[in-house]
Amino acid sequence: MKRRTFLQHSAALAAVPLVGLPSSARGLTGASVARGAVAPLRVNAERLNGWLAAFDKIGRTPTGINRVAYSPADLEGRAFTLGLIKDAGLVPRVDSAGNIYARLAGTDASLKPILIGSHVDSVTDGGNYDGPVGSFSAIEVARSLRDQQVRLRHPVDVVIWQNEEGGTIGSKLAINDLTDADLDKVARSGKTIREGIGLVGGDVAKLKDAVKKSGDFACYIELHIEQGGLLEKAGLQIGVVEGIVGLRWFEVTITGFANHAGATPMNQRHDAMLAAAKFTVAVNEAVTGEPGRQVATVGRVNVLPNTTNVIPAQVVLTVDLRDLDRAKLTHFTERFEQLGRDIGTATGTTFAFKRLVDSEPALANAQVMSWIESSATALGLTKQRMPSGAGHDAQEIARIAPMGMIFVPSVGGISHSPKEFTTAADVAHGADVLLNAVIAADLG
Amino acid sequence: MKRRTFLQHSAALAAVPLVGLPSSARGLTGASVARGAVAPLRVNAERLNGWLAAFDKIGRTPTGINRVAYSPADLEGRAFTLGLIKDAGLVPRVDSAGNIYARLAGTDASLKPILIGSHVDSVTDGGNYDGPVGSFSAIEVARSLRDQQVRLRHPVDVVIWQNEEGGTIGSKLAINDLTDADLDKVARSGKTIREGIGLVGGDVAKLKDAVKKSGDFACYIELHIEQGGLLEKAGLQIGVVEGIVGLRWFEVTITGFANHAGATPMNQRHDAMLAAAKFTVAVNEAVTGEPGRQVATVGRVNVLPNTTNVIPAQVVLTVDLRDLDRAKLTHFTERFEQLGRDIGTATGTTFAFKRLVDSEPALANAQVMSWIESSATALGLTKQRMPSGAGHDAQEIARIAPMGMIFVPSVGGISHSPKEFTTAADVAHGADVLLNAVIAADLG
Repeated sequence: MKRRTFLQHSAALAAVPLVGLPSSARGLTGASVARGAVAPLRVNAERLNGWLAAFDKIGRTPTGINRVAYSPADLEGRAFTLGLIKDAGLVPRVDSAGNIYARLAGTDASLKPILIGSHVDSVTDGGNYDGPVGSFSAIEVARSLRDQQVRLRHPVDVVIWQNEEGGTIGSKLAINDLTDADLDKVARSGKTIREGIGLVGGDVAKLKDAVKKSGDFACYIELHIEQGGLLEKAGLQIGVVEGIVGLRWFEVTITGFANHAGATPMNQRHDAMLAAAKFTVAVNEAVTGEPGRQVATVGRVNVLPNTTNVIPAQVVLTVDLRDLDRAKLTHFTERFEQLGRDIGTATGTTFAFKRLVDSEPALANAQVMSWIESSATALGLTKQRMPSGAGHDAQEIARIAPMGMIFVPSVGGISHSPKEFTTAADVAHGADVLLNAVIAADLG
Repeated sequence: MKRRTFLQHSAALAAVPLVGLPSSARGLTGASVARGAVAPLRVNAERLNGWLAAFDKIGRTPTGINRVAYSPADLEGRAFTLGLIKDAGLVPRVDSAGNIYARLAGTDASLKPILIGSHVDSVTDGGNYDGPVGSFSAIEVARSLRDQQVRLRHPVDVVIWQNEEGGTIGSKLAINDLTDADLDKVARSGKTIREGIGLVGGDVAKLKDAVKKSGDFACYIELHIEQGGLLEKAGLQIGVVEGIVGLRWFEVTITGFANHAGATPMNQRHDAMLAAAKFTVAVNEAVTGEPGRQVATVGRVNVLPNTTNVIPAQVVLTVDLRDLDRAKLTHFTERFEQLGRDIGTATGTTFAFKRLVDSEPALANAQVMSWIESSATALGLTKQRMPSGAGHDAQEIARIAPMGMIFVPSVGGISHSPKEFTTAADVAHGADVLLNAVIAADLG
């Protein structure tokens, strides 16, 4: 279908059957919808969920969805996605970083695009919702705007970031945040990022062409599954993301002294595992003992010599600390280091901290949050503001554009698992909010 | 040298030079020594420590002593030991189980032998003292008795048990406590026990010939390094072992639920590692919170998926619990299981306990302890009663004979390590106590 100006809408209306769409959706400006003058628009939920169902077959293995970046299944997934974009009447473009863009033109050539999208790669043994829900909804939003002949002033750019699960690689390339050395890191598929960029249709020699600058986009809005259980537990339909938490990863090496588990009295031990256990409990008590939504996890623990009858000589463990507030990250970092010193003294062990990762919180833009919020309200959906504990491409793009994210509930709070699931109704709610938030953003 | 009766001693005395021996040692009965009528006998400490120094070259590798049972180094060590026995004027015999015996005849053919000895195999990357100290001292005691022409009423049987470090295999065979299936287990050398028995000169088809019955020995006394730091810390020279602790090994499987470390609020987690940490701390508090010498160790911990940003789904850990008192083992077993239930409830996880090992405490015989104690006193050595936290062949032989053990200090409490060390003076003290305890046992 060719693009039409808003002035052409009335003429087109008579010719195009709009089965199943509310009559209020026909021939509207974004302004009239966003101002609440008419009922909010809705996407074609059946079509959107149909895409998700079809996509579930790509990379499906007995242990879950495996569309890890640069794998054959990822390439198949991208091809499927390109097909959806084309079916929506848009022209997809793979940039030199391997990110897919597609533009729905606006009426005002002086305005910057509203960017919407997500990713379609998966973790190992993951699910079908983390990424595709936001990606396909963005395509569906563009398609719905076209189908419903709602012509916005701003262009709408749909984006599918490559290799989100490998560390928001595509969006990092878009903000020029990867070094040449980073490109040689091996992704889960076994390919380096450098190789992967070529495989997905990019061009490592021209990566600069893919870099976006501050001001290039009017805003960025990403719909995503929550990956936690807050919305489900609260019985709410929409999460209005306040930001993506900052993340600190520590590797803590606790050194004691190996000795005979039978012959060494309890008061003569330097038990690295006992120290590690006390530290794990203390970290948990520290973060739960203060108000706030900070989280900390001891996820990886390796014990030496790891033998039943030998007192552990050394434990290497990791702490994953996250919060939306940078000051809290600093506060808990100091607290954990102090706990290590105290427990080391008490147990006759030493604690050494190494910071593996240190990423800043990425705050959502207040205006974008309000567009999301008012859209949910107009759609009669229940909502709450909340942080994103998981990382997203939005955290990178927040550095060059006003950013907002929409969350929809994950059943059981489960993600990165074959059990990952979001209901078709909730997918539709999220896409509807995205559609109306884009319309609100267009009004500005 | 031929064996002589006590009545021959006076005649022999004139002919045999007894350089460096106290005059009181010549031509004595055990009774006169044990009754304190004369100064206690002493072994030839220089000779004994010379054997240990020479033995240190066998199986020595850059990472420690490696004379694991049935390895070429073990066979070399056994050959060296057989040489020492022959040099002592005794005739060694390898029985069908591969244990080495050598008899110093007594004067009363109706009396059962006093059994003394230990083992010469090592752990992987171990030291030179765990085993050889007791084995060579037993040989030296027999040689000293001969050299010093102290003829005992009882025969003295020196024994070198095969494969102690693989699970007191030689002594278990001696009490008929291994099944046919046990023989097919692979030892650290890579050989099965069945193969190993053949390699060390035994005969698997005739294992019954190696079985000893209750009443076959007057008593069993084993000298060993402490392998703990109690004696050194207390500044004492001799440990009078009250028994070898009973041992229970539990494998505890803690099952939670894997979830996103960022997106899952602290109060919605089922964190198996947090539960494991609380349990590890609680086990420690339980055993240290009651009077007694019980010890418990969480030595092996395996976490799934063991990833920095995933809340652990499962932890499998082991608890090694030891005490001399069977009732305490039962008490703490129940306590640990209760702690598991409570912590499981508190953390939303489940605890499953599997008992891997359950060995009964082996108590030392009161009479044998008193012989050891009075010998230490006569020698002017400081001492204390204490349990053996480590396992020994003595725990097996305790089932068929009155058992006692003598401990000498381990520097730094270290054993099963290349750093394992006991001073030459302490080795001599231990051997002296063994010598005089044998003399006391002979008196009965």
